[in-house]
Order: sequence, then C-alpha cells, then structure tokens
Amino acid sequence: MSLARFLDLADLSPEEIRDLLALADRLQQHPEPQALAGKILGLIFLNPSLRTLASMQAGMARLGGSSFVITPGHGTWALETRTGVAMDGAAAEHVREGLPVLASYCDVMGIRAFAEGHDLANDVADTHFKSMAALIKKPLINLESAINHPCQALADWKTLDDLHIAPRTKFVLSWVPHPRALPLAVPAATAHMAALRGHEVVVLRPDGFALPDAVIDRARAAARLSGGSITETDDRDSALKGAHVVYAKEWGSTRHYGDAEADASLRRSLTNWQLTEQTFAQATPHCKLMHCLPVRRNVAIAESLLDGPRSVVLQEAHNRLVVQMAILYRLLK
Amino acid sequence: MSLARFLDLADLSPEEIRDLLALADRLQQHPEPQALAGKILGLIFLNPSLRTLASMQAGMARLGGSSFVITPGHGTWALETRTGVAMDGAAAEHVREGLPVLASYCDVMGIRAFAEGHDLANDVADTHFKSMAALIKKPLINLESAINHPCQALADWKTLDDLHIAPRTKFVLSWVPHPRALPLAVPAATAHMAALRGHEVVVLRPDGFALPDAVIDRARAAARLSGGSITETDDRDSALKGAHVVYAKEWGSTRHYGDAEADASLRRSLTNWQLTEQTFAQATPHCKLMHCLPVRRNVAIAESLLDGPRSVVLQEAHNRLVVQMAILYRLLK
Amino acid sequence: MSLARFLDLADLSPEEIRDLLALADRLQQHPEPQALAGKILGLIFLNPSLRTLASMQAGMARLGGSSFVITPGHGTWALETRTGVAMDGAAAEHVREGLPVLASYCDVMGIRAFAEGHDLANDVADTHFKSMAALIKKPLINLESAINHPCQALADWKTLDDLHIAPRTKFVLSWVPHPRALPLAVPAATAHMAALRGHEVVVLRPDGFALPDAVIDRARAAARLSGGSITETDDRDSALKGAHVVYAKEWGSTRHYGDAEADASLRRSLTNWQLTEQTFAQATPHCKLMHCLPVRRNVAIAESLLDGPRSVVLQEAHNRLVVQMAILYRLLK
Repeated sequence: MSLARFLDLADLSPEEIRDLLALADRLQQHPEPQALAGKILGLIFLNPSLRTLASMQAGMARLGGSSFVITPGHGTWALETRTGVAMDGAAAEHVREGLPVLASYCDVMGIRAFAEGHDLANDVADTHFKSMAALIKKPLINLESAINHPCQALADWKTLDDLHIAPRTKFVLSWVPHPRALPLAVPAATAHMAALRGHEVVVLRPDGFALPDAVIDRARAAARLSGGSITETDDRDSALKGAHVVYAKEWGSTRHYGDAEADASLRRSLTNWQLTEQTFAQATPHCKLMHCLPVRRNVAIAESLLDGPRSVVLQEAHNRLVVQMAILYRLLK
Repeated sequence: MSLARFLDLADLSPEEIRDLLALADRLQQHPEPQALAGKILGLIFLNPSLRTLASMQAGMARLGGSSFVITPGHGTWALETRTGVAMDGAAAEHVREGLPVLASYCDVMGIRAFAEGHDLANDVADTHFKSMAALIKKPLINLESAINHPCQALADWKTLDDLHIAPRTKFVLSWVPHPRALPLAVPAATAHMAALRGHEVVVLRPDGFALPDAVIDRARAAARLSGGSITETDDRDSALKGAHVVYAKEWGSTRHYGDAEADASLRRSLTNWQLTEQTFAQATPHCKLMHCLPVRRNVAIAESLLDGPRSVVLQEAHNRLVVQMAILYRLLK
Repeated sequence: MSLARFLDLADLSPEEIRDLLALADRLQQHPEPQALAGKILGLIFLNPSLRTLASMQAGMARLGGSSFVITPGHGTWALETRTGVAMDGAAAEHVREGLPVLASYCDVMGIRAFAEGHDLANDVADTHFKSMAALIKKPLINLESAINHPCQALADWKTLDDLHIAPRTKFVLSWVPHPRALPLAVPAATAHMAALRGHEVVVLRPDGFALPDAVIDRARAAARLSGGSITETDDRDSALKGAHVVYAKEWGSTRHYGDAEADASLRRSLTNWQLTEQTFAQATPHCKLMHCLPVRRNVAIAESLLDGPRSVVLQEAHNRLVVQMAILYRLLK
C-alpha cells in the first residue's frame, strides 16, 4: 500500500488505517534512520503550532530527511488566499504562486490552515484548505484544516490501541470551556475517528454547540462501517455515566458561528462545564482523559485531573510523532 | 573553477556563468546527495523571505548539508548597522560582532539586506551590503541587497536557457504598479543579466521611474561584452511590439527616491500600467511573461496572464533552487 | 565520564570540567561528523537569541544530528509557567504539558528562560528554570536561566585556556552601562567560573549593583576549591590596576531589583562607567577584554576597544560552538 496524500482519515479504509498503525509500531520497534535520506519536507504554518511543528521536524529527521518551515507573517509576508481580488492590501503574495513554488522545493508538504470562523458552511466544506491542496501536485499532509486534523485523529487511535481500550466502549467527546470560540477541526476529526474505531460515541455539549449535521453524518457513516454509534446530548450525567474515555475539547458555538459577541455571551454561563474530579467521577473507574493539547488548566480541565493517573494527554502528543513518521514513510517510500 | 563569494553576476565572466549553469544542469541530472555532507549554511534575513529561505535550506539539504536561520526581530534582537553610533536605541547588537560570530559557526553564509530607500546614491553603491560583506571572511552569497539579486538573475538566465529563448531577441523589462515603492535590486539585476545574455533590452517605465545612470551604465557595459543593447522608454506600444520576453517588475520612483508621499502621488496615476491580456497582445505570439515573485495579482499583472500558458514565473522560482545548489557546490567543493 | 544534564558549572568537579574542555579540543582537532547521527536536539527559546540558537544548531549539525526550534510568541503561542492559575489569559499552553511533550520528540533539550526580574530571591534561586527542568526526563542543557549561563562560562574558560592566561591572575568583572536593567545570569556565572579557575576575581560595580550574597558565596566556595579569591569594590582605579582580564558586563541594580524607575534613575548617573581606552589603560599591557555579547558599542564599551587587539569577544563567541559540541557529545554518547 502506498499513499498519495494524507488529508482526511475518511480517505483511508479501516484496513489501510490498521496497516498505517502497524507501520508506526514497526518503525517504533525497528527504527529506519536512513529511510528518507535526501528527502525534504516543506512545512507551511498559516497558524501557530508547537507539537505539530516539532513532531513533524523531529519525525522527518528520525527517518533521515530534512525539513524547512515557512510561517507567513513571521519572517515571511502574509499570503492571500481569495481568488479574483486586486491584491492591494497587506498580503504580498498569493497562494497560487506561493504554494506551488514551495512544493517545487520539497518532496512532501504539510499545510496548517485553521478555519476562518466566519461562514460555517464554507468551513465545514473545508473550502479554503481544499483550494490550497488543489494547487499542490506533491504528496501533501493536512496539519489541521478548518474541519479536519487527521494526524491528531490517527495519533489518538494509536493511543487507544496502546491503552488496549476496546471498540464498542463508550467514548464521550465532551465540550469544555475556553475564553473564546475555537475551530471545529478536532471535534469533527475525533467524532469521526472514534466512530470509525467502533465506539459508542456520545457528543456531550451545551445547547448552542451542536456539531454541524455534515460532521455528524460523516461520523454516522463511519459508525455504520464499524458497528459503532454516535449520539449527541447536553445531559452531562447520563453522558459521563459508564464512559471509558472522556475526550475533552473546546469549540465555538455553531448556533452563533462567526458572531464573537453572541458566542462569548453564551459561553460566559458555561464555565461550570470545566471537567473536574467530581464530574469525572461519574465515568468508569479506569476512564481515560484525552485532549489534543494545548489545554487551559483550570479553565477547560482541572489541574488535578490533568496531573492525575487517568490523563493520557502526553501519550497522545507523543503518538503524533510516531504516526506522522509512518505517514511520511508511506508517502515517500 | 572555484568561487570565493557570489555577490554580483558581474563578478563572473560569461564563461564562468555558463560553467555555473552547466553545473546546475549536471546536479539536476545527476544529484549528489552527499556532496556537502557536514557543511553548514548560515542564513541571515534582515528582510522577509519565502522563496529564498525555503530554496536555500532545501538546496543545502539536497546536497547533504545543513543550515541555520537568523531573522533579526523575530526571535533575535535587531542588529545595528551604522558605524560610530552610541547604541542606546532598539538594536542590541552590532553587525560588526553579530556577523563575524555567525560566520564562525558556518562554512558559507547568505545575507539578505534590502535597500534602506532613503539615499539613492548609497543604495545604488550598495554601501550597506558591501560594508557587511567586508566583515565576513567566509564564502558569502548575496540573497538580495539594495541594488542586486544575483541568485534571481542566474535563475532567470537558466529559465531563458531552458525555454530556448535566443539571445539577440527583444527582452522588455516593464515597470508595473504596486501599492508602494519597492527596491531597485531586481530591475537592476535583471537589466544587467539580460544585457549580458545578449538581448535587445528595453526598459519600459513611466516618467519619474528611470533606472539610475549607474545601473544603465553597468547593463550597457554588459551589452558591449555580449553584443546586446539596452534602451529606456516610456512608450508602451513601441516597447512591447515584437517582445520575446516581458519581465514585469515593480519599483519606486527614482525621481522621488525616499519621498514616500511624492512617490505615492505619482503612482496613483499609473494603475493602468498593470500588464493585461490587451497590453500583452502587442508582443510576439509566444512571448513569455517573467516575474521574480511575489506578485500582486490584478494590481501588477492580471490574473488571467499569470495563470495562462505564457507565464513562466513558477519555472523561474523553481530554478532558484537549481542554480543555488550549483552556487553552494562551487563555493564549498 | 558521562553527563546526565548540563545545568550549572558547579555540578561538575574541576576534573570533569577539564575533561569536557579536553573533549572540546579533541573534537576541534578530530571532527566526528557522524557521532550524533540520528539524534535530535529540541531548542526552546522563551527569550531571544542569536549566538545560542545558531551555535546550538550548528554544533548539533557538525556532529551529524538535527534540531528543531520552538520560540513561544513567534509562530507558537505563549507558554504559562505559573502553577495553580486559571489559564484565562494570553498563554494557551502550560509548560507542564508543553515541555514534556517537546522532550518526548527529541534526545536532548535546551531551554533558555531569562530572569523575570521582579523578585530577586526567586531569580537567585533559579526557581523558574528549576521548575521547568524538573518536568523533563531527558538530557537537558541550560541555555541561560535567571542566574546561570553555564555554556557561556565554559566557553569563557576555554577562551582563557586558549589564550594561556594563567590562574592566580587578576580577573576583573566590571559592570558597564546599558539603557536598562539586564539579568544577573552572566555576572553570576562568570564570577563563579573565574573563581573556580583559580583567579583573583574582583567584582567592580557601582554602589547599588552589588552581586547578591548567594552569588558571592557560591563564587567564594569555588575559590576555596581552586585557591582563587573573590572581592567586590566600587573603586575603578584600584580594581583595574594590574588586571590580566577585564570581563565587561551589564546588569540591573540589585538594590532596586524589579523597580525599573529607581534602577533607571541610578544608572543615568553612571554613563561614565563605559569602558574606554583610558580606563583600560590602567590594566596590564596585555590585558584581555572579554564580553559575552551582545554588546552596545559606545554605551557599554568604546568602539575602539572592541575593534582593538585586546578584545577577544569573537573568540569567546566562537568557543560557544566548540564547547557546546563537547556538551552535546557527553550528554548523548
């Protein structure tokens, strides 16, 4: 099996995903420090990064390759992404030139481009990322787009495997507080991943934060493949009861998408959605706490939970490196 | 042949340029992924970069070497370049210490330092860059100075070769609009390169934007060597007629150099200098459109031209990587 | 001998330091370009850097390894370091997650975290850096903390060795002017290093800038080991007389620590503490001028001194690369 691009976990069959995870395990057990010697990874960060930047560069280096990083706005001018406009503003270069040029310097490219957060339909359709991806004729990795984060989803799948958490168990994707509206990429990717792994997925979120129909429909299609299920609720007690995994995540109000004021007003009343020892006590005794990081301590999740034995957030983050090495290997070998 | 520094295409004889381009071709056909193993490139960007940063890092890596990047003002303090001043302002370090120190960590260095844009004579003499270059006892590459951009010029020469565009054809360097005054480095380097390649060079620019005498004189000397020619005009019809290449470029008013207000007032009346299908129709049918990038779509050049079959801007940008690998090889082997 | 971490020169015995310096010499004479092949260095810069960034990346590359750089605030969000707070401010991630995650991607880590400059006792105890170091289970290098800069101290020791400057000679650590209060890391590390090397150390500083007792006590303990000595004075004539080395350094008022206004008012009257040819003339004829860089010309030190034959600031900076290669080698081999 070889991959042309890694843009969405849904592009892979369950067998292909398992094969990729097996490759990740193999590379962990039997490193291949020269596998990608001479190969170059180009990383384009239209938004900030810590884990993704470091793990992509480290992963490429551990396989013998090299990388360069372009961060528009930090040492590079801003890139225009709209089509048909007269470029008389701040952006000095259009992605239609910038991205193919950068792609011509490397063997594989990764792009991070968060949701614009104005138009829900556009963001759910991933219009922006897809238009950029269409410009690139090289192997490409989605490093988080408006509605997807497949590297995170694959790392989380591996973490669940590593922890021997059986499919068909209850996986609660729980909305948690944050000072402002965050994108839907991780909740959408997580719901899909957990459904595809066969979990009984419960999306727990306050009124006004329902995931978009298209996101739920995609997860439901994945659940049909795997024998899992997906439901949504705002009832915290029933959702957490019997949970084997609580995956905490912050996201913006979908009812007030793009309306920062209405979103803020709604979330002001929801600070008690912070995950605490008490709320977590309703889950199963060995329930794991997952989060993609970065996380705001004592806002989204209580410090004691994050520092406690049920938290697996560091394992998840480490698995970003492990699975991305497998992705790079599959794309380039 | 070996090179000590690559600061100006005019430092090389036509034979040396052809030899460098032949090396670029050879490395393209027969990669040498270990040629520069263990060698280190230090990149100093006093101004923003996209192509230059990525292509220099990628080129060094494709030859087996490594690089580091210093971007004063982004993770590094500002560098003072004036001599004799009491450094009680924002700049924490002087180039007289900073540059030799960085040079002592690497085997070859590249510096980007744009024109200051205040004093035309100073910028045309490249005073600032030359004073920095004098501090460095290692192989050095000019990554764009006030009045030169030899890597771009060499990449453009290769692009003309790749396209089999004969010398003695008409090469129009056409001024195009931009929201503000840009430096003279690329127009100066392009006029010189095209003249040295033997073209009938026409510099087409509005009144107030004539290239400095020193720039024209240099190009004329190159034309004498090669059998080419150079003229200047503000008559768009006669200039474009019969052109085999139109090289579009933005630059600031030389009449009002350093006077942003007078420059802006002049350029407000020149938006119709945008290159469009109509203006381009006056050239020969197979006329190529060149530009060093970044380019502002629908301000400098119409989108349809950039996306059309006559545009070779992506080839030019890719050739940056190709020729820079040859330059690095020559400087270090 | 192998090292687990390189956080403080005082953690090493004099024999271990000499062994490390011998390794640095050996690697200079007999490079080992594949010694650290496949190894990865993670660099975390909570504060700006030029020499440290470039020399760490270059040193790792010269030994065959790779590195990645994380600069919170430049392409990465700010990191929270306080414990127990509700993270509802600007910092999106806590070091308790960020640092272990980054450590899990690399084989050795370097952290730069300057003094906060508010609470002298906290900064002298290096509370902030020590709490971060405790989070990391990998080999770790202090790239300058609130009160220490062991890489600089080791490079300076090597510079003194290279120059054949005998122990038991007079080493003057001289306060020099700067527009604002700078941290105590370099003066503290320098006083300790010079005392441990056996010098007659004189700390020359104006009233109000005495080094903290804990710093002097540490240096005195080192002097006892080596047969050196340490004294403090504000008498420039007596201090400089007979000096074999003048190590110039800027630091903030310890009397007014954290009080920018009182510090500024005090230093306004001290601009004549600039090191000039005249003041330097009081030292021995071959007295060397040292400084860790960056240095403000004609504010801290007169330009003519810096450009003159007695200045060894460039050698010191180059030795950063040389000793750091030995440190990386010891930590990873």
